[in-house]
Amino acid sequence: MATADIRTQNLKEPVDVAEYLFARLHQIGIRSVHGVAGDFNLVALDYLPKAGLKWVGNCNELNAAYAADGYARVKGISAIVTTFGVGELSAINGIAGAYSEMIPVVHIVGCPSTMSQRNGMLLHHTLGNGDFQVFANMSASVSCAVARLNDPAEVAAQIDHALRECYVRSRPVYLMLPTDVVGKKVEGARLRQEIDFAESPNEEDREDYVVDVVLRYLHAAQRPVVLVDACAIRHRVLGEVKALLDRTRLPVFVTPMGKSGIDETHPSYGGVYAGDASQPAVREAVEGSDLVLSVGSLQSDFNTAGFSFRLSRLRTVDLHSGHCVVRYSEYPGVKMRGVLRKLAERIDLSQLKVRPPPSKTTGEELDQGSGGGDEVIRQEWFWRRVNRFFRAGDVIVTETGTANFGIWGTTFPAGVTALNQTLWGSIGWAVGATQGAALAVKDSESSRRTVLFEGDGSFQLTAQEVSTMIRHSLDVILFVICNEGYTIERFIHGMDAEYNDVAEWRYRDLVPAFGGTEAAGARTYAVRTKDELSRLLDDGDFNERPGLRFVEVYMPRDDAPAALKLTTEASARNKPKMQS
Amino acid sequence: MATADIRTQNLKEPVDVAEYLFARLHQIGIRSVHGVAGDFNLVALDYLPKAGLKWVGNCNELNAAYAADGYARVKGISAIVTTFGVGELSAINGIAGAYSEMIPVVHIVGCPSTMSQRNGMLLHHTLGNGDFQVFANMSASVSCAVARLNDPAEVAAQIDHALRECYVRSRPVYLMLPTDVVGKKVEGARLRQEIDFAESPNEEDREDYVVDVVLRYLHAAQRPVVLVDACAIRHRVLGEVKALLDRTRLPVFVTPMGKSGIDETHPSYGGVYAGDASQPAVREAVEGSDLVLSVGSLQSDFNTAGFSFRLSRLRTVDLHSGHCVVRYSEYPGVKMRGVLRKLAERIDLSQLKVRPPPSKTTGEELDQGSGGGDEVIRQEWFWRRVNRFFRAGDVIVTETGTANFGIWGTTFPAGVTALNQTLWGSIGWAVGATQGAALAVKDSESSRRTVLFEGDGSFQLTAQEVSTMIRHSLDVILFVICNEGYTIERFIHGMDAEYNDVAEWRYRDLVPAFGGTEAAGARTYAVRTKDELSRLLDDGDFNERPGLRFVEVYMPRDDAPAALKLTTEASARNKPKMQS
Repeated sequence: MATADIRTQNLKEPVDVAEYLFARLHQIGIRSVHGVAGDFNLVALDYLPKAGLKWVGNCNELNAAYAADGYARVKGISAIVTTFGVGELSAINGIAGAYSEMIPVVHIVGCPSTMSQRNGMLLHHTLGNGDFQVFANMSASVSCAVARLNDPAEVAAQIDHALRECYVRSRPVYLMLPTDVVGKKVEGARLRQEIDFAESPNEEDREDYVVDVVLRYLHAAQRPVVLVDACAIRHRVLGEVKALLDRTRLPVFVTPMGKSGIDETHPSYGGVYAGDASQPAVREAVEGSDLVLSVGSLQSDFNTAGFSFRLSRLRTVDLHSGHCVVRYSEYPGVKMRGVLRKLAERIDLSQLKVRPPPSKTTGEELDQGSGGGDEVIRQEWFWRRVNRFFRAGDVIVTETGTANFGIWGTTFPAGVTALNQTLWGSIGWAVGATQGAALAVKDSESSRRTVLFEGDGSFQLTAQEVSTMIRHSLDVILFVICNEGYTIERFIHGMDAEYNDVAEWRYRDLVPAFGGTEAAGARTYAVRTKDELSRLLDDGDFNERPGLRFVEVYMPRDDAPAALKLTTEASARNKPKMQS
Repeated sequence: MATADIRTQNLKEPVDVAEYLFARLHQIGIRSVHGVAGDFNLVALDYLPKAGLKWVGNCNELNAAYAADGYARVKGISAIVTTFGVGELSAINGIAGAYSEMIPVVHIVGCPSTMSQRNGMLLHHTLGNGDFQVFANMSASVSCAVARLNDPAEVAAQIDHALRECYVRSRPVYLMLPTDVVGKKVEGARLRQEIDFAESPNEEDREDYVVDVVLRYLHAAQRPVVLVDACAIRHRVLGEVKALLDRTRLPVFVTPMGKSGIDETHPSYGGVYAGDASQPAVREAVEGSDLVLSVGSLQSDFNTAGFSFRLSRLRTVDLHSGHCVVRYSEYPGVKMRGVLRKLAERIDLSQLKVRPPPSKTTGEELDQGSGGGDEVIRQEWFWRRVNRFFRAGDVIVTETGTANFGIWGTTFPAGVTALNQTLWGSIGWAVGATQGAALAVKDSESSRRTVLFEGDGSFQLTAQEVSTMIRHSLDVILFVICNEGYTIERFIHGMDAEYNDVAEWRYRDLVPAFGGTEAAGARTYAVRTKDELSRLLDDGDFNERPGLRFVEVYMPRDDAPAALKLTTEASARNKPKMQS
């Protein structure tokens, strides 16, 4: 490799490949790296401390991928290290989820040496067929960039390109790092120039044209509203949306996946629009609007309460990360950020008809359960009750299942970040994501609380990651909804079917088994009545103590939030009919 | 779909697709189906009881795939049902392991309806891009057949073909079952004809030619030996090998992955050949042989103690499932089964020089730990001690790590089945595999014990599947080697590195947390000295009681079987040198 040697000698500030990679991760805001040690990544892991990065050491790779997803949702981007074959494939469902949900995760796979690959050696962690590309090819379907870091002369540029793609396109990238490349030299002087994450601007004439068209419809509309969805969060235009709202006071609604994208204490905030599962006043405001300015929409089945949105193309302006659509006119390549900025600047307030948003329904009286009556904790009551427990700045994670639908009915305090995986919907995700989110909070030296609502069936998939929360002394309030299995599935099919049951666990006993002690800040609780839950949620120690608070909440097996019932009914109704 | 309708009307005995599929699974010996319920497979699961199949209901899909792998290793073939996207990708590392290690697993993926797929609907569990083939394409790399069951007119033939491929090629197959196809009608009369699993015979002239060549070398050899490896087990020629040994009394050795392929009480059995990590007498017998009849070899790094086999091509006859090699002469398409049969028939015993195998070293004295001295349980002592605990017919599972190497030093009683994943080497596999293996034993109405040796680091990946053992009242003896983390990795790199540590768990406390009670047959133990271990292994109740026996065995962190140390040293020595 004479060429490489000559290049190495010409380096001004030679640094090892792993040192370069990890320095870049630190520069872009990552402080902890998730993953599982494996023999093809061990040498790389030695470089973490020097770069100022903590190693998480998850219990398994799928959980690590979920955790990296959660970390990125709070801190902007994240990284996971796995080992070739076994490790990366264990993680791939979590990576696919990040791809589907548009979360920027850097997946670094430690792999056999370039020489072993060239020789097609019969190594462990291979399919035994000498093919060392097969796993990278699988990951290519769920990554926006794949980089095989084989040639030291190319590696630094490959890393910088991949990290930029990851952030800008807000999707996972895959870096394949051979053991013998880890310590090769690359140009360290590059590190003084930070990676440019700026989005390329729209072509000005095209952007101005779209802004003019949108303004024309906005000015003419009698009941314009703004609807904020997932892609507005993922593609980081919430600042632009807020500027528009602050200036115009247009009523704004969010979809389920858009929840927490808008400060829900903002005077313009009107609530969650979820088609048939919306509050009546919200539904009337959105479906009765003659111009919906839709920002970053993602109309998946569960995000639209079973395809029950009633938004006509003729009444919609659709702004996306890579294109815009006004009624039936499409503008490929015109990105929403520039359009939103100019809308806020150029809108003529004198022409705009602004109605107040519908009044929120959070003030309603809650039966506290005292004084007899039905003491059982039902979903509808539960979500209204925990709504009062939320605090400004909370990170609130809901698992796919009853929790993901129950949360629609809440109104958040300011500064809340809500995490859900409504599109990909991989159960078990939320436990890992919570570990990652809570660590991101800790790495930000913030005192935000991380609150998880988890189903018992889902919890069983990834339960061991509670031990990682304990190991890293994370501040987590974890509610396990104990309702005997896969309740969301019961409402889809098989209400009483055995396959929707799960093994009977003593959930809170896992905390000490996973190493959690009261001395080290882990405490467990069980609540079976409204009164018990209310008292716990009001308890000062419960609210203020650091560490893990693990709460079993017992609820009836066949009870679900109305939003879940409506969605499964609408899904069944709106699904393609059989031709038979 | 007029064509399909006409065909349906012409069916003699119409049965639903799911009924057909599950009837086939039952016919080929499957009695329990592993997997996790998910919304795209629920309707199919309704058909299980009618087919006489039990639903396992694993805690997560990766564990389910490992369990299906273990079930197939004991019962011959297995099935796992997952749901589209999230479920199948969670399982894919386990499926890849079955592909790599040649285990026949039928992977059935419940997926969205054919209509949803055609319309590219934005459903949950998708990447949001309308691509419904992406996951099947990923699985195609780790499956020997992929069948998309879309057209009822083709489905029965597709199923039969896939099941035959699965069994004959001994590798996973992938069946994509849309929700709307589950209840379509296919021809049930086909079920009266069982699927033909017979291997096509060799072309006779070619086979005879190879047999003649091999016999010439065998008859001329001064010290012929037989070496049995993984593919002899996977391609089911152990009966043919036994017939050859019974007739010839040729000394026979096994590789680590071939262990338990030969009855180790057979008078011809000589021990485990593992290159530099072999017992000296075994090494001398194999490497000193002038003709090694190698059956089903798979010379991966860990199966050869770090590529330390010393077998010259000029002294080797290599028989494989799809071809044979005699010295440097290759015979593609000539399968070993026919060759082995004819060798046993035609060999001329009067010309054969048969030496006795080296004497086994199992009779050596064991320090029981009583009477002072070092009470600590060390690996070398441990494996010699548990060797005496084994019983005829045991199913013995060893996890990748110290256990997979420690087991090399044991000599099994008759009828033992050993399970390991030496090629793929995915840690955590053994817990799932043990659940599947023990269930296969139960489904066979056998009283065999299933014994697992698991590392603490590995255990953390898949711990929750212990609850499935409890839920299904499986008879499992589970030893967790408590030695503070990834000991195998410490010997590869980073003896004291933090990334080789794991969270401190109270392992045995997981059993009650996972629902295990003494009343229901689950009991836990902890042993810290040789004496405690010996007394436990001799205890009648421990040996005889049914259900789960969960044993923590405490051993030093930096202690490993000699075979592991030798293998990691040889791997480092034999790995391709850096060109730098």
